[in-house]
Amino acid sequence: MENFRQILSEIKGLDQNAMKAARIHQDRLTKPRGSLGRLEDLAVQIAGITGKLHPGVDKKRIVLFVGDHGVTRQGVSAYPREVTAQMVKNFLAGGAAINALASVARADVEVVDIGVDHDFGEIKGLVSRKVARGTKDIAVGPAMSKKELEDAIAVGMERAESAFADGVNLLATGDMGIGNTTASSALFAAYLDQAPENVTGRGTGIDDHFLERKIRVVEMALKVNQRFLSDPILTLMALGGVEIAGICGMILGAARRRIPIVIDGFISSAAALAAIRMNPILKEYLIFGHLSEERGHRVLFDRLDLRPVLALDMRLGEGTGAALAMIIIEGAIRAHNQMATFQSAGVTDKAEE
Amino acid sequence: MENFRQILSEIKGLDQNAMKAARIHQDRLTKPRGSLGRLEDLAVQIAGITGKLHPGVDKKRIVLFVGDHGVTRQGVSAYPREVTAQMVKNFLAGGAAINALASVARADVEVVDIGVDHDFGEIKGLVSRKVARGTKDIAVGPAMSKKELEDAIAVGMERAESAFADGVNLLATGDMGIGNTTASSALFAAYLDQAPENVTGRGTGIDDHFLERKIRVVEMALKVNQRFLSDPILTLMALGGVEIAGICGMILGAARRRIPIVIDGFISSAAALAAIRMNPILKEYLIFGHLSEERGHRVLFDRLDLRPVLALDMRLGEGTGAALAMIIIEGAIRAHNQMATFQSAGVTDKAEE
Repeated sequence: MENFRQILSEIKGLDQNAMKAARIHQDRLTKPRGSLGRLEDLAVQIAGITGKLHPGVDKKRIVLFVGDHGVTRQGVSAYPREVTAQMVKNFLAGGAAINALASVARADVEVVDIGVDHDFGEIKGLVSRKVARGTKDIAVGPAMSKKELEDAIAVGMERAESAFADGVNLLATGDMGIGNTTASSALFAAYLDQAPENVTGRGTGIDDHFLERKIRVVEMALKVNQRFLSDPILTLMALGGVEIAGICGMILGAARRRIPIVIDGFISSAAALAAIRMNPILKEYLIFGHLSEERGHRVLFDRLDLRPVLALDMRLGEGTGAALAMIIIEGAIRAHNQMATFQSAGVTDKAEE
Repeated sequence: MENFRQILSEIKGLDQNAMKAARIHQDRLTKPRGSLGRLEDLAVQIAGITGKLHPGVDKKRIVLFVGDHGVTRQGVSAYPREVTAQMVKNFLAGGAAINALASVARADVEVVDIGVDHDFGEIKGLVSRKVARGTKDIAVGPAMSKKELEDAIAVGMERAESAFADGVNLLATGDMGIGNTTASSALFAAYLDQAPENVTGRGTGIDDHFLERKIRVVEMALKVNQRFLSDPILTLMALGGVEIAGICGMILGAARRRIPIVIDGFISSAAALAAIRMNPILKEYLIFGHLSEERGHRVLFDRLDLRPVLALDMRLGEGTGAALAMIIIEGAIRAHNQMATFQSAGVTDKAEE
């Protein structure tokens, strides 16, 4: 954990010079100033993250962390626990939503078993980094031991290092794990100081009765883990999931290597919140891909004064919202890098005011 | 015009059987039902447009209609009139925003000179279909003659036919023409029965003084052309632009050939409004790509109960918003066509409620 705290403290802010140069460059391109809206802001942010006036985003990767949750025994999900392992096979076979959307984004999908309660044996394409066979039930105690949390964060950081070594210049987070909206709601409640009912939603599609139970479970989780909640790292240990901790580690690893990272939906945002609470500077490195339909996601954007790139009523996870946002980001960067200037194209500029 | 009215009256509604089958198919895919949100709705709509359970959207084209506007003599734009012709050269050289964004969308860009006040001579890549050297000033009378309107609509229909012949299965509209937000504001005011100040914005970036003048010009245009405004076709003739009429014709031609068409921003929406007022069934065929920052665009969505795919604060035109939306649509269709079902993937479904 000391290594982790050390790295956390070393993250610097964005490169202001690169951002300034990027903004000046944007104003020379053949378009009315500001008319590309958020695309201009994304290009400037990525210049700041990478420290490059003309960053590339041609090598994209979505890292999908998968883990099980002890809290499923409380009956909080519409799907049985074994679906987590079944979906891992679906990801590897290319049959899931993330496979289809990643193909549009021209992004690799890396599937990481960080905590599935299933023995996959030899299975092609899976990155096997199991740190536990799922978490313990947060309704009765902490989700993870310190060792498990440390290991999970280390796996996330290692996947960021691996992406860096492979030349990846745009990362995205993804998650899968039956029960993980419950853990994420607990994290949202703790980190944003919200009543459980404000940040607890229907996940994969539970009815009113199940939702009521889920809210009670989040209340219990906050109560039994109260002693951990004054420290953002211990909060993640107590209420999180191993896949959420993995995503948190990858966020830190990406910032350390100055790789822009797109945060998917509600679960990935819980990990992002954990990271931001550990070091607020990390907020500058994140691009929130989309507004999920999951209740409570909106609270994050309101409270942290952030805006997601997309709002398409999606609530699937897996990195699906991030995958689509990656394409918008590629558009932002291609416009930034490829457009002609007023001067180079011989187009008359607006008269100075 | 008789030919046009005939075709207009022959447009049928969407294929309800295909839509029903598409919805059933969506519910079998390995994801919680409804969890792909708007992507599911887009897939179902496109099934209805094309009449196919598994439509393709692999051949995409953005048709960019370019024309000048007589109203520029009223001093309503931040850029001089000659920028229209200069930007045509920039489009053909690949230096504009639309070139960069179309490359991300893997879409062709077809540039149509339908009414630029410039003689391009022989110029590679330009589709030369000039019906007038710009419109007349709408502040003093109708923009076009009946013949010009008819010709412009015919050009748009012809470009849809050409796309159909080339196997294009996803079309998008684009526009360029200094002065065309003024014409579009007049059309918005007329078709949506709005006061000019509600639907007149800053276009390419005019200041308060220019905006005040622009609103007055829209008021004048509505007043001097009052006698045309009871008929939606004559409204387009009186207040529109040749590029706007071309887009309107392409919308009709796309619906006739059952090709899904993505509407870009404010100017393309003025053309879409014209088409919808001519035959309300056309609304079902349209996908509005994005919410423009241009004041008044939002009124369309509120009044017609529509939702754009994206909202990225863009206000550039050229088809830039539509290009990005095309990629989201491709994601929707790839998920629809490529995902495994619960049965095929061996994933346990949610228990029936």
